[in-house]
Amino acid sequence: MKPSINQSVWANIKLFAMDVDGILTDGTVRISSDGIESKVFSILDGLGLVRLRNAGVQIAWISGRASDATTHRATELKIPHLIQGRTDKLQALGELTSELKLSQSEICYMGDDDIDIDAMKWAAVGITVPDAMPATLAAADYITTRPAGKGAVREICEHLLKAGSRI
Amino acid sequence: MKPSINQSVWANIKLFAMDVDGILTDGTVRISSDGIESKVFSILDGLGLVRLRNAGVQIAWISGRASDATTHRATELKIPHLIQGRTDKLQALGELTSELKLSQSEICYMGDDDIDIDAMKWAAVGITVPDAMPATLAAADYITTRPAGKGAVREICEHLLKAGSRI
Amino acid sequence: MKPSINQSVWANIKLFAMDVDGILTDGTVRISSDGIESKVFSILDGLGLVRLRNAGVQIAWISGRASDATTHRATELKIPHLIQGRTDKLQALGELTSELKLSQSEICYMGDDDIDIDAMKWAAVGITVPDAMPATLAAADYITTRPAGKGAVREICEHLLKAGSRI
Amino acid sequence: MKPSINQSVWANIKLFAMDVDGILTDGTVRISSDGIESKVFSILDGLGLVRLRNAGVQIAWISGRASDATTHRATELKIPHLIQGRTDKLQALGELTSELKLSQSEICYMGDDDIDIDAMKWAAVGITVPDAMPATLAAADYITTRPAGKGAVREICEHLLKAGSRI
Repeated sequence: MKPSINQSVWANIKLFAMDVDGILTDGTVRISSDGIESKVFSILDGLGLVRLRNAGVQIAWISGRASDATTHRATELKIPHLIQGRTDKLQALGELTSELKLSQSEICYMGDDDIDIDAMKWAAVGITVPDAMPATLAAADYITTRPAGKGAVREICEHLLKAGSRI
Repeated sequence: MKPSINQSVWANIKLFAMDVDGILTDGTVRISSDGIESKVFSILDGLGLVRLRNAGVQIAWISGRASDATTHRATELKIPHLIQGRTDKLQALGELTSELKLSQSEICYMGDDDIDIDAMKWAAVGITVPDAMPATLAAADYITTRPAGKGAVREICEHLLKAGSRI
Repeated sequence: MKPSINQSVWANIKLFAMDVDGILTDGTVRISSDGIESKVFSILDGLGLVRLRNAGVQIAWISGRASDATTHRATELKIPHLIQGRTDKLQALGELTSELKLSQSEICYMGDDDIDIDAMKWAAVGITVPDAMPATLAAADYITTRPAGKGAVREICEHLLKAGSRI
Repeated sequence: MKPSINQSVWANIKLFAMDVDGILTDGTVRISSDGIESKVFSILDGLGLVRLRNAGVQIAWISGRASDATTHRATELKIPHLIQGRTDKLQALGELTSELKLSQSEICYMGDDDIDIDAMKWAAVGITVPDAMPATLAAADYITTRPAGKGAVREICEHLLKAGSRI
């Protein structure tokens, strides 16, 4: 397990950006014989993200793969920044950071595959999940205890909410 | 593990109230590309709830999030009290308790998230599941052995049925 | 673990009867917001049942709960005896045994809940799965290594196929 | 665990052929009450296969059971060789090898059931997953660490990409 992140680092975060598949889900996609696709999201994660949004923290979902299932879930949770079809995660994250007039120390990024590593390293806190790819695990500042799609994102929301007297 | 609940406490229960997501399910929701939502329920739980209803115990599902999938399952099991869209669980539970002319010592409540804690503490028995949020685990009188959505509710039904010569 | 079953006992079996939910599935049912229900079956189980059928062993699915999803899967695998909506498993199994002119020593039965116990005890081999209800586990002659819905039924098919030179 | 495969063996592979159910999925199929079938695929596997294809390695899916869900996923990933409804895996693999003018030492094959064993033994590297059937596990040259449908195929993609300077 990596050393824990200092409270002051969490308190400084103004944007929590994350990958979708393998972070908000367990990294699987269900395909039906009629071509319908579905994904499994966590209610614990959902409540954490809604609270974080209400506390004034910016939230972004950055997915390499466009999916209507993801769009439906983002709409339900009123995720302000939904970016799909971008595998150049660091580039996408940099553009959003500029647009929001934030700085590197105000960003945390969470991903599970190797295409997430650059964004994780660039952010103030690079976060991953227990079942991430080996190189991604090695690059992370923080590895969640809960698995992806079963409360891993909520675990980060709790850190962010507890830090900086947001709750 | 918390100390076990005395048989006489179980025997006194007349209303078994519970959260839905993370208690009757594993806390996930599947979202399809066409916007259809689905949830996974346990057949073991279903049989336990039907038997409990037949034994004259009141059953309530109190969910913070409205879902047609939950409504379909509640209809199938003929759950008498289905309350959706209420995150003020204790308030909702109190109203139902008054309506049913029951007292605090006749209620057990089962939940997995922090919004369930007040209702758990107020009830005669506050129950949770192994994968609950840390604060919820700490507040529980009883933590089931079986996981949510895989027989956790049935485990409580068995305690209630065995106590008080209900079976 | 219970003592292993003698090869000659397996070799004598002419009917493999089983519960559906919690045996051929993991005991869960998915309910959609549009009322559609679905269940998860194992491809390993499917291949085992087809081979057993081809080897001349009778197969019966006896479910307490009627489900179109079960009917679809039974049709695909050409299960000869599909009995749904019967919670009196022993009675249903006895009727089928008479109809097929078989005797008690030629039957094995597999179930996971307490309503399966009488049929399990009556059959020559009473089989259950690791996640069965405690009373059902206690009543079983044989507990599979593989979990329900992930090859537990295939494990029994292998025993039946290997015994009596069926393969 | 089996001894690890030499880098030069991986570097020589020009066709990665694999079974679908129990390799690209966890071996389950979901059946709905309206007859719709669905399967769960891994995003990690998907990215690995796309990269392998881009690196010039041939990819084949050889399934004993035809499924529209499989066809949809193969189309999305642009899998060049999709062979369904063939339980004679070795025969199907041999025909494809001839068609592609490849030799035995250039093939790796991955499967989980006993009908995959002949193809696994014939190929230069016979691969399986932790939850495979016992006889299949015994016949394998390589057993993945990750489970089927949760990155097992990606694990092989990584070996193939790293070997022979493909990345």
